[in-house]
Amino acid sequence: MNLRDIGEGALIRTIRERFSLSALTPEEGGALAARRVRAGEVHVGIGDDAAVFDLPPGYSAVFCSDLLAENTHFIRYLHPPDSVGYKSIAANVSDVGAMGGIPMHFLISLAAPGDLDFSWIEGFLDGVSRACRDFEVSLLGGDSSSSDRIFADVSIIGRVRSGQSVRRSGAKPGDAIYVTGTLGSSALGLERLKAGKVDDPAIRRHLYPEPRHRPGLAVADRAHAMIDISDGLSTDLTHIAEESRVSARIYKDRLPAAPGVEERHVLHGGEEYELIIIATDLPPTVEGIPVTRVGEIIDSGLENQVFLIDGAQESVLHPKGWQHFR
Amino acid sequence: MNLRDIGEGALIRTIRERFSLSALTPEEGGALAARRVRAGEVHVGIGDDAAVFDLPPGYSAVFCSDLLAENTHFIRYLHPPDSVGYKSIAANVSDVGAMGGIPMHFLISLAAPGDLDFSWIEGFLDGVSRACRDFEVSLLGGDSSSSDRIFADVSIIGRVRSGQSVRRSGAKPGDAIYVTGTLGSSALGLERLKAGKVDDPAIRRHLYPEPRHRPGLAVADRAHAMIDISDGLSTDLTHIAEESRVSARIYKDRLPAAPGVEERHVLHGGEEYELIIIATDLPPTVEGIPVTRVGEIIDSGLENQVFLIDGAQESVLHPKGWQHFR
Repeated sequence: MNLRDIGEGALIRTIRERFSLSALTPEEGGALAARRVRAGEVHVGIGDDAAVFDLPPGYSAVFCSDLLAENTHFIRYLHPPDSVGYKSIAANVSDVGAMGGIPMHFLISLAAPGDLDFSWIEGFLDGVSRACRDFEVSLLGGDSSSSDRIFADVSIIGRVRSGQSVRRSGAKPGDAIYVTGTLGSSALGLERLKAGKVDDPAIRRHLYPEPRHRPGLAVADRAHAMIDISDGLSTDLTHIAEESRVSARIYKDRLPAAPGVEERHVLHGGEEYELIIIATDLPPTVEGIPVTRVGEIIDSGLENQVFLIDGAQESVLHPKGWQHFR
Repeated sequence: MNLRDIGEGALIRTIRERFSLSALTPEEGGALAARRVRAGEVHVGIGDDAAVFDLPPGYSAVFCSDLLAENTHFIRYLHPPDSVGYKSIAANVSDVGAMGGIPMHFLISLAAPGDLDFSWIEGFLDGVSRACRDFEVSLLGGDSSSSDRIFADVSIIGRVRSGQSVRRSGAKPGDAIYVTGTLGSSALGLERLKAGKVDDPAIRRHLYPEPRHRPGLAVADRAHAMIDISDGLSTDLTHIAEESRVSARIYKDRLPAAPGVEERHVLHGGEEYELIIIATDLPPTVEGIPVTRVGEIIDSGLENQVFLIDGAQESVLHPKGWQHFR
């Protein structure tokens, strides 16, 4: 059965039945309670022209989107469909976390060819469902379309305490630079997947990333600036430097490299979904996730750059992470 | 110059400079004042991990997305790029209007091939800019990616007075069925465009639709149910019937056909962005837009259907509007 056989109406009914807030099954597990509480704030869910929900008083809305395009972000015959579904949500949850926010509700706009087997859609929805559970978020709607290639765009709404959102632009000379978790394994996992391996920790990390929204929320009252590492440490730390009009100095031997990775994975690997946190003082773990101090923010000359210290050597770390259209 | 020459960084800088809330030029015209007022509610705009803004007290959030895929919704060499930009916003504004809401802020996720000429992007942004002005909405962020085909997904946030959102499910037997504006010209315009014509009122309507969010807001306190005609009258009125568990009866001679259109355009043509409003009594115009009473909601048997009355003949009007994956 492919999408053409199933038809758009049945596709939407399938999604609606599976993700309706009133149709939750006990298997939904931990997120169930959170969703039930939240259900009182959702007035209109999947199946109308738009969803309608409330934000609690004292919070601002956090709003972003992140898309996955076939042959750019994933290869249909290499990436399992549940990974595509899971990552599409995880990437957005990560962005909300990088603002110090709490992810809440999302929409999926999914385009796919009519000859796509429906099992791909079911796998994709399995990944979305698991992401709902893991991140305590809910699907409220979206759009579907036929197209020549698979394309999944997710937009998410979260909330952040009024005045507590953490921007990229707040880093100040003297601040310390922290990184959550470990670096390099998503890029290594992609290489291993392309080489034909199917299961190891790096591949699992690449396919099912763990966004750090809970640590991000926990440090929101102390962080001066924050960004998630989606394009690579070199690129994302340069974003902080540019937006804050400062420079950054990091020490190669302090970078928390994941097992088996090489220097290029650590410095430039994308889709890590770890956080770079700029703050004066953080404990060694936050919400159970290790936090490593890797350098400091320094005064900037004309250019806002990242410097890499390797023993007695200091060099400019140019952004060499992922760039589209190249 | 194509996208590959320009690069992702320069693309994002271009968009950011053009749509930054603080960089508005006097040419932005009527929307300027509205945006300035709104700017106080926007804490973080384009250029961070996510946008951050406030909803005024007493309002719920309205949240939806609508995507345009190349070769499905538009043909690159037939549809001007500013039409693609304009329609991508108009379709979402229409959905917010169909809930009785006020559109506010949107995100664009844009995927495009690296060899796409940058003039296409500039045209697309011209259309987005005009839509911002016409609909008093603002771009707060999004995502960009390379891909084999052009794909634009827009997600929008609007607001609706708490408890006043208008669903598809509130129609009751005895209610009247109203339609705003005229029907059929978008489908006719597409046919004329494909036939090589370049400029007439139907083509303009197809390329630059006028969503009815202002009439939608004006009737929100009186409408029992509402939907926008994006897939065609037959399909969208059937949605109302199914969600409200009623049937509908419409009179062919009362349907407000646009000049030059045929019956199939009126009954099944999509992308109209007119509203179907279910209410007890509406005036002949709302916010300057004609509103025509075309039939009534009736009790339903087992099936929730639409009946078309043509003189002494009555037949079931099956949903034959746009269906994806067919």
